[in-house]
Amino acid sequence: MKPSLAVLGCGLIGASLGAALKRAGAVSRVAGYSRGDDARIARDAGHVDVACASAAEAAVGADFVVVAAPVPAMPALFAQLRDALGAHAIVTDCGSTKHSVIEAARRELGDAFARFVPGHPIAGSERGGAQSADPDLFRNRRWLLCPLEATRPDACDSLARLLEATGARIATLDPALHDQVFAEVSHWPHAVAFALSAAIAGGGLAEEALDFSGAGLRDTTRIGASSPALWADILLDNRAACLASAARFRASTEAIVTALEAGDRDALVAIFAAASRWRNRLA
Amino acid sequence: MKPSLAVLGCGLIGASLGAALKRAGAVSRVAGYSRGDDARIARDAGHVDVACASAAEAAVGADFVVVAAPVPAMPALFAQLRDALGAHAIVTDCGSTKHSVIEAARRELGDAFARFVPGHPIAGSERGGAQSADPDLFRNRRWLLCPLEATRPDACDSLARLLEATGARIATLDPALHDQVFAEVSHWPHAVAFALSAAIAGGGLAEEALDFSGAGLRDTTRIGASSPALWADILLDNRAACLASAARFRASTEAIVTALEAGDRDALVAIFAAASRWRNRLA
Repeated sequence: MKPSLAVLGCGLIGASLGAALKRAGAVSRVAGYSRGDDARIARDAGHVDVACASAAEAAVGADFVVVAAPVPAMPALFAQLRDALGAHAIVTDCGSTKHSVIEAARRELGDAFARFVPGHPIAGSERGGAQSADPDLFRNRRWLLCPLEATRPDACDSLARLLEATGARIATLDPALHDQVFAEVSHWPHAVAFALSAAIAGGGLAEEALDFSGAGLRDTTRIGASSPALWADILLDNRAACLASAARFRASTEAIVTALEAGDRDALVAIFAAASRWRNRLA
Repeated sequence: MKPSLAVLGCGLIGASLGAALKRAGAVSRVAGYSRGDDARIARDAGHVDVACASAAEAAVGADFVVVAAPVPAMPALFAQLRDALGAHAIVTDCGSTKHSVIEAARRELGDAFARFVPGHPIAGSERGGAQSADPDLFRNRRWLLCPLEATRPDACDSLARLLEATGARIATLDPALHDQVFAEVSHWPHAVAFALSAAIAGGGLAEEALDFSGAGLRDTTRIGASSPALWADILLDNRAACLASAARFRASTEAIVTALEAGDRDALVAIFAAASRWRNRLA
């Protein structure tokens, strides 16, 4: 008997997960719920089987419940799950940060917290929403699971087996390390791209910069075109780790400015060389 | 009678220019000079007709002399040109900065300074050297000319007509504005990409960052893989404008850090929104 799935939040990630698992024949039924129109759009496109009126309705009878909503919406969704979850249901999330999601799940899920497996699929697109769903979104991408000491190993194993049907490469990572690493490689770099774009936008050369910029600036600022609200929430949610990454970045920026002011070519070359050696390993 | 060309510095830019103008049939002869092997490599590949032993030898009899060497090498090359240049020869350069190049030309070229047209082709590649030459490198790219009050208009017009044969779109820009704009869209953004790469390389998560980074970090840091020495020289050469861009960038970074520390979501969203509005115009 194939498991049934509930997807809470049917944006790009949730709708793509439904589409991938249905195409793979890995689930018997996918119940979707979203606050806006995404669940209906996903149902009309065949990515989920039914669009439910509430998170609780979607979760009733589900073997797996995947919370694929923005991180700030998760505590309320967990609270609605508590009485709807079956005794063996396994719950996971798709949030970009893990600390606050785990604390919310611990607070809201009751006994089911032992069957909550924090997760993070490393996949996405600058185009969001159910209408952008893609059953191949997760293929060959990583899907990180961040089990806690309190997490039942069989819940983690069952979830990993289900998610493998998306084509993702499942790996585990300590949740605290997860938040530090993603502050470093994603959250704070988004702030840098926003900061550089904001500095140019607010300077006296904003129009000339649009006119004369090349591929370098386009790449360096690309993620500065991301959703302001989404990324404000992610940075705030992972604030401590992001501020640690910010402190390291400000120190390296200050070292460059100091060397530049002093005309110290050797110091500049040394900083740039350490940077490019590392960057050249990022294939 | 087609004009003859001397190219001083036969790296990517110089060798590509020779290749483009020879293919277009726009020049009678291309004489190349380089300090290292580039001129011989360019000659063997047919991008220049002859590899000369000195800058002066290449310049003798040339109607156009294009200095395509790194900016720090230009003063010495201009000094060698002074007595070799014909009475009507037109000189240009391909440097990423204009202020110091112009001052060196003014100091070294004597009367020929009136026939010096500061230039900057907006083209390049992370792969340098004559072996990377491409006759299409300049096609549909901008080639900026930055004439001064002292520059003879007919010299600027003749050079523009020659360079049009590369397929580049020729435009003029005030030299001081050039240096400010390129600090903003290229020089300081390189420092930012180096700073972000250096911060990650020097932090405790350098290996994990290589393992878990995605397309966002790859794009944001891409130009942080550029040549450390080349970019140290460019930033130092355009120091005042780069420090002005740096000051604006540090202010927007500080505003983000302050909002993040204070948990001020509205302030963060406002900064990110101004950034993404501008970035979304950068098609």
